[in-house]
Amino acid sequence: MLDKYFDELEVGSRNVSRGRTITESDLVMFSAFSGDWYPLHTDSEYAASSIFGQRIAHGMLVLSAATGLVPMKPGVVLAFYGMDKVRFTSPTFIGDTIRVEAEVVDKRDKGDFGVITVRQEIKNQRNEVCNTAILKVALNKKPAA
Amino acid sequence: MLDKYFDELEVGSRNVSRGRTITESDLVMFSAFSGDWYPLHTDSEYAASSIFGQRIAHGMLVLSAATGLVPMKPGVVLAFYGMDKVRFTSPTFIGDTIRVEAEVVDKRDKGDFGVITVRQEIKNQRNEVCNTAILKVALNKKPAA
Amino acid sequence: MLDKYFDELEVGSRNVSRGRTITESDLVMFSAFSGDWYPLHTDSEYAASSIFGQRIAHGMLVLSAATGLVPMKPGVVLAFYGMDKVRFTSPTFIGDTIRVEAEVVDKRDKGDFGVITVRQEIKNQRNEVCNTAILKVALNKKPAA
Amino acid sequence: MLDKYFDELEVGSRNVSRGRTITESDLVMFSAFSGDWYPLHTDSEYAASSIFGQRIAHGMLVLSAATGLVPMKPGVVLAFYGMDKVRFTSPTFIGDTIRVEAEVVDKRDKGDFGVITVRQEIKNQRNEVCNTAILKVALNKKPAA
Amino acid sequence: MLDKYFDELEVGSRNVSRGRTITESDLVMFSAFSGDWYPLHTDSEYAASSIFGQRIAHGMLVLSAATGLVPMKPGVVLAFYGMDKVRFTSPTFIGDTIRVEAEVVDKRDKGDFGVITVRQEIKNQRNEVCNTAILKVALNKKPAA
Amino acid sequence: MLDKYFDELEVGSRNVSRGRTITESDLVMFSAFSGDWYPLHTDSEYAASSIFGQRIAHGMLVLSAATGLVPMKPGVVLAFYGMDKVRFTSPTFIGDTIRVEAEVVDKRDKGDFGVITVRQEIKNQRNEVCNTAILKVALNKKPAA
Repeated sequence: MLDKYFDELEVGSRNVSRGRTITESDLVMFSAFSGDWYPLHTDSEYAASSIFGQRIAHGMLVLSAATGLVPMKPGVVLAFYGMDKVRFTSPTFIGDTIRVEAEVVDKRDKGDFGVITVRQEIKNQRNEVCNTAILKVALNKKPAA
Repeated sequence: MLDKYFDELEVGSRNVSRGRTITESDLVMFSAFSGDWYPLHTDSEYAASSIFGQRIAHGMLVLSAATGLVPMKPGVVLAFYGMDKVRFTSPTFIGDTIRVEAEVVDKRDKGDFGVITVRQEIKNQRNEVCNTAILKVALNKKPAA
Repeated sequence: MLDKYFDELEVGSRNVSRGRTITESDLVMFSAFSGDWYPLHTDSEYAASSIFGQRIAHGMLVLSAATGLVPMKPGVVLAFYGMDKVRFTSPTFIGDTIRVEAEVVDKRDKGDFGVITVRQEIKNQRNEVCNTAILKVALNKKPAA
Repeated sequence: MLDKYFDELEVGSRNVSRGRTITESDLVMFSAFSGDWYPLHTDSEYAASSIFGQRIAHGMLVLSAATGLVPMKPGVVLAFYGMDKVRFTSPTFIGDTIRVEAEVVDKRDKGDFGVITVRQEIKNQRNEVCNTAILKVALNKKPAA
Repeated sequence: MLDKYFDELEVGSRNVSRGRTITESDLVMFSAFSGDWYPLHTDSEYAASSIFGQRIAHGMLVLSAATGLVPMKPGVVLAFYGMDKVRFTSPTFIGDTIRVEAEVVDKRDKGDFGVITVRQEIKNQRNEVCNTAILKVALNKKPAA
Repeated sequence: MLDKYFDELEVGSRNVSRGRTITESDLVMFSAFSGDWYPLHTDSEYAASSIFGQRIAHGMLVLSAATGLVPMKPGVVLAFYGMDKVRFTSPTFIGDTIRVEAEVVDKRDKGDFGVITVRQEIKNQRNEVCNTAILKVALNKKPAA
């Protein structure tokens, strides 16, 4: 979706990404990188007695992995403005495979560039929605040939 | 801020975190982990000719690092509900040192637990605000002695 | 324990840390970082025929992970002087969850700062002691208000 | 030194390792792995105003890197017993190149195997001693042909 | 190039990838992952006195990074058969930005699938060729609509 | 084999390396480092329905790990020239333990240094050959005492 210029996208343009299995290794690496070692993610004894019954992925891990699942094309993305209504609706467990479904829900022409609003759902292999978010991204227009 | 139980926090409770210098290594590691190799983050030639003039950190890198800067106490955090009004307001360059300033702006008692709303600002060593966001987190109440 | 100034600690002050599950990923990452690929840690065939019957964590991995389990407060720790009587008393297997129990056993006032001696035990979820050590750390005194 | 069987080593056997440059990336990776983000290692602003004037490597990082510099031979090392008199005598800065100098100072025959005591010095490219330690390691005897 | 089915590619089809800056962090991470700590890659003192005058990236690091620069589409690639005439023709230094130029030089129809032969050149920002190689890859044919 | 000078090796000199278990963590780390997230390596659902029935290691992961299994001695290796006839003959699954068997098949004296040709086989714990390759490496001659 971020591999197309502003003028190549329409409201209603949709994309489904490839999948990525979230592994124990991902939980360890993200705990390490972020510094967020909250025991729900890193202590299997603690997690076993939590409401989830096992370790769960960090919400921000899932959101971060999603950014890499969406194809991007050099020269297209100008800037990432922000997100709204980010909701973590189901936990992601070790071994789950996530994918990103995205749809353009608004586009605003700003002259030299444009801003698109994307509704993004992160789903797992059981088709449960793990996360929903609204993203705003500034995109370049297609260069003249 | 997430090292206190729901009933130990008040609207207006504030916290300023320690700092973390965002290094070139962080950009490489986050590109690797997330799979987001957009050339603004990973190609110094491309970035030099961008509006930023140099490589910048991924927005999600900065948000992820912020989660690890906020002290958390095992047993306190029940679940991370989501975020609103996430805005990337200034770029983070290699070598910048970020910190997190957070303030409780709302709290809702849900019976066995509570939900706090936190206004979070990520600032750099020049006191520029890089990111603002509203977070919603479910917290446990303090266990009876 | 390292989140308190020298004059806030007494001989006998104790702390029990949160837990961290030592994963296969931790063994791989520490082998990679340290360069110590001894097959007891990295070759499951070799390890199966060793006295341990399976791969074990590096002693230094366990000691390193312990440093991150002990809460530290910026401005408190002046320098890490060293360790004595470091003994690896039980192996740590993949999936074990370790915690750190520490007690101040001596404190010496050095004028502007102080040096504490800490007896540290690393235990697993079966309450076996995996490592014992005596640490010496220089701490700042509490700044005047 | 750990690439020789117990009966191939004598009191006085010495070894000098290859070098390893400790990079900013190593500081970030070790902070991440260990969870020890103390700002002397990770916050360049804080470190600039410390007695060291810049970020320094974690003592345990240096000790861990040393374990990978000492050649080991599969089948030789039986177990790592522990360390005594571990002293961090000089800081390691980003860009320093360390090497390990080791000498067998005692050997005890235990029947099927033996235990050696090694005096280890970690030095940098300025020949400053960064760390000294006494290590005890159980080694196998050379198998009959 | 590997984002197209066998029947969508012709002999002569070409692709130029995005760039990736090879950082000090990449050298450290690849040394760690591979276990190849040869001092030309990891000891800045040793490297300074070598014929290269500074640390150089591992040949296999450059080849590995190239695999991630070539776009791939799920369902297209069946298997990676191998490589011929892999030659490391210029060193890659810290800070160099590499890209991959690839051209299909042969295609063989195998019935249900096909095998393409690709001539690949890895170039840096000075347009020096760092590596040349011939790759053989089995690709699926485009599924019927 | 790369721990001996050119004049210490003969055509026919052989070496068998230690083993390394290829873990799920290795697949995740190599996908991350290389940027090659092809779903055969990273999506357990996709891989389950492939001809392999499960995730397989990247060919380049296996080749890269092999470079770290071959002992190298500082001062011996001058440069890595390249590879020929690299063939991936069997998949490497998570949990497989690989080793490298190498034999010098040619040596050429170049005056100040020499070039050896090595036939390398990477085998797993079932003695299946996963990869064969011919490597060319420039080695120094033994320095005069």
